[in-house]
Amino acid sequence: MIKIGVDAMGGDFAPKEQVLGAMLAIKNIPDIEINLYGDEDIISQYLTDKTRINVIDAKYVIPMGEKNPIQAIKTHKNSSMVVALSSLRTDESDAVVSSGATQALIAGAHILVRRMKGFKRTAISPVLPTVHGGHTILLDAGANLSIKPEYMLQQAYFAKIYAQKLFNIENPKVGLINIGTEDGKGREFDQEVFKLFKETDLFDFYGNVEPKDVLDPPCDILISDGFTANIVMKSVEGAAKGMGKLLKKHLMSNLRGKIAGLLARKNLQNFKKELSAEEIGGAVIFGLYKPVIKAQGASKAYGFYNGIRQAANVVRERVFETVKEYIDTQKDFEDE
Amino acid sequence: MIKIGVDAMGGDFAPKEQVLGAMLAIKNIPDIEINLYGDEDIISQYLTDKTRINVIDAKYVIPMGEKNPIQAIKTHKNSSMVVALSSLRTDESDAVVSSGATQALIAGAHILVRRMKGFKRTAISPVLPTVHGGHTILLDAGANLSIKPEYMLQQAYFAKIYAQKLFNIENPKVGLINIGTEDGKGREFDQEVFKLFKETDLFDFYGNVEPKDVLDPPCDILISDGFTANIVMKSVEGAAKGMGKLLKKHLMSNLRGKIAGLLARKNLQNFKKELSAEEIGGAVIFGLYKPVIKAQGASKAYGFYNGIRQAANVVRERVFETVKEYIDTQKDFEDE
Repeated sequence: MIKIGVDAMGGDFAPKEQVLGAMLAIKNIPDIEINLYGDEDIISQYLTDKTRINVIDAKYVIPMGEKNPIQAIKTHKNSSMVVALSSLRTDESDAVVSSGATQALIAGAHILVRRMKGFKRTAISPVLPTVHGGHTILLDAGANLSIKPEYMLQQAYFAKIYAQKLFNIENPKVGLINIGTEDGKGREFDQEVFKLFKETDLFDFYGNVEPKDVLDPPCDILISDGFTANIVMKSVEGAAKGMGKLLKKHLMSNLRGKIAGLLARKNLQNFKKELSAEEIGGAVIFGLYKPVIKAQGASKAYGFYNGIRQAANVVRERVFETVKEYIDTQKDFEDE
Repeated sequence: MIKIGVDAMGGDFAPKEQVLGAMLAIKNIPDIEINLYGDEDIISQYLTDKTRINVIDAKYVIPMGEKNPIQAIKTHKNSSMVVALSSLRTDESDAVVSSGATQALIAGAHILVRRMKGFKRTAISPVLPTVHGGHTILLDAGANLSIKPEYMLQQAYFAKIYAQKLFNIENPKVGLINIGTEDGKGREFDQEVFKLFKETDLFDFYGNVEPKDVLDPPCDILISDGFTANIVMKSVEGAAKGMGKLLKKHLMSNLRGKIAGLLARKNLQNFKKELSAEEIGGAVIFGLYKPVIKAQGASKAYGFYNGIRQAANVVRERVFETVKEYIDTQKDFEDE
């Protein structure tokens, strides 16, 4: 049995949607059991079926807008997030899913779960949809705002293993996010990364990729530093949100548009669904000792279920172990 | 009369669309005359009305994919772009519009037009649409990939004057593009810019703005370094392009969707038009001696006409002169 730890109290609709998502996951994924960390009294109001679900009481909730995440993690040992993350060190859980405060989760993961031995810098890795129904792994979405180019070799390698195991892509291509496609484009940093990536045997390097191809990229993985990739992620989110509003405005502007909107309601719903983060699950933090997955704060049951499904896949496919085994063979990757 | 110089040979559909755009501009803007720089023989095939239009022969065209833009500018003194840009120094033109190769245009602008005295670093400034039918000035879209925080004060001030004069916004708000809204977010660079902007009296600083609000921002101006703002611009472009494809796919997936698409054809066209760069004109290079406007490479006549209209507005409203007058009064801004 794969043991998924769930921070039941983190997120905009916790614990209701987390508990419903957990029960949905149990129904659909036969080889998992779930540890729900949170306030037992509140959780029990929603938990109508306890099959393969344990509840571990943790009364405190780290608030979504937490200003001092490190302090919060260190102080609130009885919080659902801290208890959930700690369960990875005791092997009570094999992976943890949380839609709690992002900065607290990242801080908590580093303090309580810690980095994989020999892995220099973690990376947060959401998955973007492509126009052809595929997936693009984006990293680093904010774990390290600046990073040494050589540490990105490990990160890109991790993404490669993830793409191989979870998306069945035999030879995933890595693209460097840049402002132009030609060699030598970008900041000094980007030029250094380009050179290192061009020389490596660790993965197949496609070259520079401009974000104007972000939903239809010529590669499976898009990588940059934690500032740039976060900016890309949020720009895509902002453009999608804005375009959705504009489309609605134009359809609602006259009767023909309104009728068309009704007629194509199902099509428009599918369109929206294809762009939705809930379909994919969450962002995995690459390079920790064990998998931690950040689901969207606004996740409903279905989105949270997808986060649990994703966590189970990462464990079942031995993504973290595979990277670990490789790193153990590499002198270059020895811990500092 | 305002004299607009037009690089008639640069762009995917040159010179036809440039010439048609120029004639359209003459019809609609009574106080301009246009200098068309390019191959006289080819231009004359499309120029059916020479009212207030002069043609200045320049046979060479700098190709769109030019690998060595500085070399190209220095070598090809008979190119339409070089002759057009040079006309700003002789006061033959008051502003130049080009949809030629971007890197060559930027290099050419710096070599031939040069910076405004006392202005430290130029900035490329496209305009983004907002969901409410407004405009957001984005900078720097790629003139300086890295920059000293203090030089951004001048750039933001330039954007403020531009917003005041061209969009009639009395007190434009400046937002710093960042990965979070709280104080202290971002790289060291962003934190320094934040501090400087918070202290300045030059403009009204809104604070940090995440790109997830890029089409519906709480401010009129969005600023970052030339790498980051370029990444934002291209991510928005990529998301818009991808979403357009996805929407089409979902509408074409069945009969109901196809009928709805036909019924709402006009609405969907308006939706597309509202997002189109052609509606706005081009990106102004802030901080040159005189205005140079980069229109999209794929501009058709209407888009190019809007670039000319924008150039005429910048000249008529004395945007560059106003910034110049201010900078002349500031010891802080003395040239190095």
